[in-house]
Amino acid sequence: MAVEYYGALVNPQRKSLRITVWGENIQEHRDARVGEIYPGGMHAAIAGGLARLLPSAQVATATLQEPEHGLTEERLRDTDVLTWWGHTAHEEVDDAVVRRVQGRVLQGMGLIVLHSGHYSKIFRRLMGTTCSLTWRDVGERERLWVCNPGHPIARGIDRFFELPMEEMYGEPFAVPAPEEQVFLSWFEGGEAFRSGCCWRRGNGSVFYFRPGHETFPTYHDPSVQRVLANAAEWAAPRGTWIDSCPKVAEPLEKIARK
Amino acid sequence: MAVEYYGALVNPQRKSLRITVWGENIQEHRDARVGEIYPGGMHAAIAGGLARLLPSAQVATATLQEPEHGLTEERLRDTDVLTWWGHTAHEEVDDAVVRRVQGRVLQGMGLIVLHSGHYSKIFRRLMGTTCSLTWRDVGERERLWVCNPGHPIARGIDRFFELPMEEMYGEPFAVPAPEEQVFLSWFEGGEAFRSGCCWRRGNGSVFYFRPGHETFPTYHDPSVQRVLANAAEWAAPRGTWIDSCPKVAEPLEKIARK
Amino acid sequence: MAVEYYGALVNPQRKSLRITVWGENIQEHRDARVGEIYPGGMHAAIAGGLARLLPSAQVATATLQEPEHGLTEERLRDTDVLTWWGHTAHEEVDDAVVRRVQGRVLQGMGLIVLHSGHYSKIFRRLMGTTCSLTWRDVGERERLWVCNPGHPIARGIDRFFELPMEEMYGEPFAVPAPEEQVFLSWFEGGEAFRSGCCWRRGNGSVFYFRPGHETFPTYHDPSVQRVLANAAEWAAPRGTWIDSCPKVAEPLEKIARK
Amino acid sequence: MAVEYYGALVNPQRKSLRITVWGENIQEHRDARVGEIYPGGMHAAIAGGLARLLPSAQVATATLQEPEHGLTEERLRDTDVLTWWGHTAHEEVDDAVVRRVQGRVLQGMGLIVLHSGHYSKIFRRLMGTTCSLTWRDVGERERLWVCNPGHPIARGIDRFFELPMEEMYGEPFAVPAPEEQVFLSWFEGGEAFRSGCCWRRGNGSVFYFRPGHETFPTYHDPSVQRVLANAAEWAAPRGTWIDSCPKVAEPLEKIARK
Repeated sequence: MAVEYYGALVNPQRKSLRITVWGENIQEHRDARVGEIYPGGMHAAIAGGLARLLPSAQVATATLQEPEHGLTEERLRDTDVLTWWGHTAHEEVDDAVVRRVQGRVLQGMGLIVLHSGHYSKIFRRLMGTTCSLTWRDVGERERLWVCNPGHPIARGIDRFFELPMEEMYGEPFAVPAPEEQVFLSWFEGGEAFRSGCCWRRGNGSVFYFRPGHETFPTYHDPSVQRVLANAAEWAAPRGTWIDSCPKVAEPLEKIARK
Repeated sequence: MAVEYYGALVNPQRKSLRITVWGENIQEHRDARVGEIYPGGMHAAIAGGLARLLPSAQVATATLQEPEHGLTEERLRDTDVLTWWGHTAHEEVDDAVVRRVQGRVLQGMGLIVLHSGHYSKIFRRLMGTTCSLTWRDVGERERLWVCNPGHPIARGIDRFFELPMEEMYGEPFAVPAPEEQVFLSWFEGGEAFRSGCCWRRGNGSVFYFRPGHETFPTYHDPSVQRVLANAAEWAAPRGTWIDSCPKVAEPLEKIARK
Repeated sequence: MAVEYYGALVNPQRKSLRITVWGENIQEHRDARVGEIYPGGMHAAIAGGLARLLPSAQVATATLQEPEHGLTEERLRDTDVLTWWGHTAHEEVDDAVVRRVQGRVLQGMGLIVLHSGHYSKIFRRLMGTTCSLTWRDVGERERLWVCNPGHPIARGIDRFFELPMEEMYGEPFAVPAPEEQVFLSWFEGGEAFRSGCCWRRGNGSVFYFRPGHETFPTYHDPSVQRVLANAAEWAAPRGTWIDSCPKVAEPLEKIARK
Repeated sequence: MAVEYYGALVNPQRKSLRITVWGENIQEHRDARVGEIYPGGMHAAIAGGLARLLPSAQVATATLQEPEHGLTEERLRDTDVLTWWGHTAHEEVDDAVVRRVQGRVLQGMGLIVLHSGHYSKIFRRLMGTTCSLTWRDVGERERLWVCNPGHPIARGIDRFFELPMEEMYGEPFAVPAPEEQVFLSWFEGGEAFRSGCCWRRGNGSVFYFRPGHETFPTYHDPSVQRVLANAAEWAAPRGTWIDSCPKVAEPLEKIARK
């Protein structure tokens, strides 16, 4: 019986990790504070950090404004790990593109969802829940604690790291129970939050990472860059499964007709 | 700080379980074999079994053909557990109704997904995966093994029970890892399958139960009826959470301005 | 094939919850601060709160100093939910009693592990991990956030509650990923912690609840008492399974001899 | 604050996987059937398959009869993945060695538990449950189905593979819910079983693989050898965490004394 019934492994031994950094790319142009911190766009800063820490990786960017938001069939087929930052325009992301991204995650592509991406169509679709939380945007200190110092996503991070100014996200965070908890956040204003969460969906690995408000230089922070590079390696495809729902014509055992 | 920020418990101590049995209600009218086995519709048979085994419950039915498929805001608000059987018309279920059902599950309503409902919009939306599988419809013996004899859904079931004629469903079953495995199926034709699977999504409990092909009298089987009654009790709301994504204006601790 | 092969349901419909509160009962007598806060012992305070909030329950206590630590076969057979507080004498708990408690949990008894009980033999045995953490005992404010307002263990708790003086416990908390996260703690001194964690082991429900240092009046706190009462109801047996590893002599299908 | 408080990464980038194959090594000498199939011992057959399929790995064996069962501190420190086959002498394994193996798994070493090893001290200790099951040893066909064709442990395996003669293991399998399900077994005699199960414990990866009864040539089967090689690669340490339970003397934030 041929393997075509439900899958085929694709590129299981690729040597160069292909990362696509997706950015909404709106507030960089509308809000002077954001434009000053990220003159090339937040996506460029994220991609730059990844390229520096993962020199053998192929890092590219894609934005909302490109045709098909830059996430064509071909581009996704050539992407091992996708990072997603969005905030003000979740509803402008085309449903067909969201389905396409979901399909690739289920086949094996890794997905790293950043900060306000908690409310993106793709994250809510993969989680099946509202993904809501509480928030306060006054700028305050955030300290991220490592829950498992041996986890690959925490590699090179000490017991904790701090961000001097960030937006606060608070519980309840309406997601399915994380399969692995990598970070918890402590906020100066009094809240705690599950800041680094892992799930498997289909054959894809999904990591949610909390920090990254647009008005703070979070993606220039060395610890944040280290976590993103670690997460990209962790989320690399473990094998790829092209799904279907096949009819299996012949039984393997004799069936007694009644 | 008021509880209105993100939730309120509703009816945590209801005494009478309110069950709505949803049926696609198509093949009963198009296929003589189905109409003979289920003259009142499959939903009527399922509801009848539940009403008999759970005499204190309020059991009602709803079908695709009713306005809003019978799943109005009011009906869902008054439903503790919803069962879902669909097969040929998944795409005809209105997206607005699917979102409404999903919203109620996340608030706390139980959902029991039956057989070909694995491909329903609501199940795929809650799982975030394709929910595909392999299948063969020649009619064969299925034996369902209990994985945890102490699980409430297996109450009253011996080590296993058998269905003399059923459709086969085979692995791979493309769902997130079940949080509890209640049944595995052995098929005469040579396959095995995860036939009773539990997940929590938001505050709702979801149970998938494999048997139930329309051309066989599965829903008249006493063991199947027992499992459905058990599952309805297991899936009863544990509390209800009306979700939002509130801004929390004031910090609880003093924040040092920089 | 008889059910005796591997299980029988025992008392699935008991109306009165039978709770045993286990206490190490040492520091109450050695440390004047503890004796002042808990003149009858910490176990008495915990039992008192449970009895007040669950008037239909049967609440009893047992301590390290009793024969078999008060946890005889008979006592455990008549216990639906056991709470465990220990700190300085984990190693004095007899291994035979630990195995007996474990056996009952796997059969279906609920277990609520309190504070320094994270290092008890029974908790480490059920988790399979070290259950270590970091700590600081200077007395500081702890704020416990609700991660899921609809969870039965959080019933009646607002968005959070505070304890003015507690010991700090910090990550990494070396346990398997919690199957449900009910509380996160924020500490005045700068740490965050997974403070309310749920697991199923065998057919038993296990809840770990962080607060409860002996030199603070934590078990007199109304919110703590509410959480413990909720947890006792949540951990009530769902069914009981008397385990074995039986040889199944006869196959159900004909086997072709070779 | 120094990392010594609770951990250090050890050898995260090792190139050569160091595998130790542990064997009970008793029935090979007592039962002529076993000795004929595995003249060098079952451990030698298992190690041979791994060495052939993973030519860059360092594969060694250790047996019950060696001092400290061959699992000295030094040997375990130099082991990345340990495989465990035992059957008749579980109780002869020294508790101190079991604790040592558990400690290394929690630090990051992978563990592959084979067949009757379900009842080994080390597996029961890591699971926290009885790990019991039902069984029948008459020799019958087993067909192992792949639940996730993209999982690294299923790499190179088609939809299923068969073993013409094996012992039967049946549900209920008394383990915590597997975090990933890789294989289900179908047995000629009528049972189904969760045959390939993954868990994380501490920082170690644990895989249970069902086949391997001593009187059948299972470890000479190419598909079984492929699964074991895949599992060894999957279970390779992701990072190593040397655990402790440190007192953290100084708070990171100012604590208001009362």
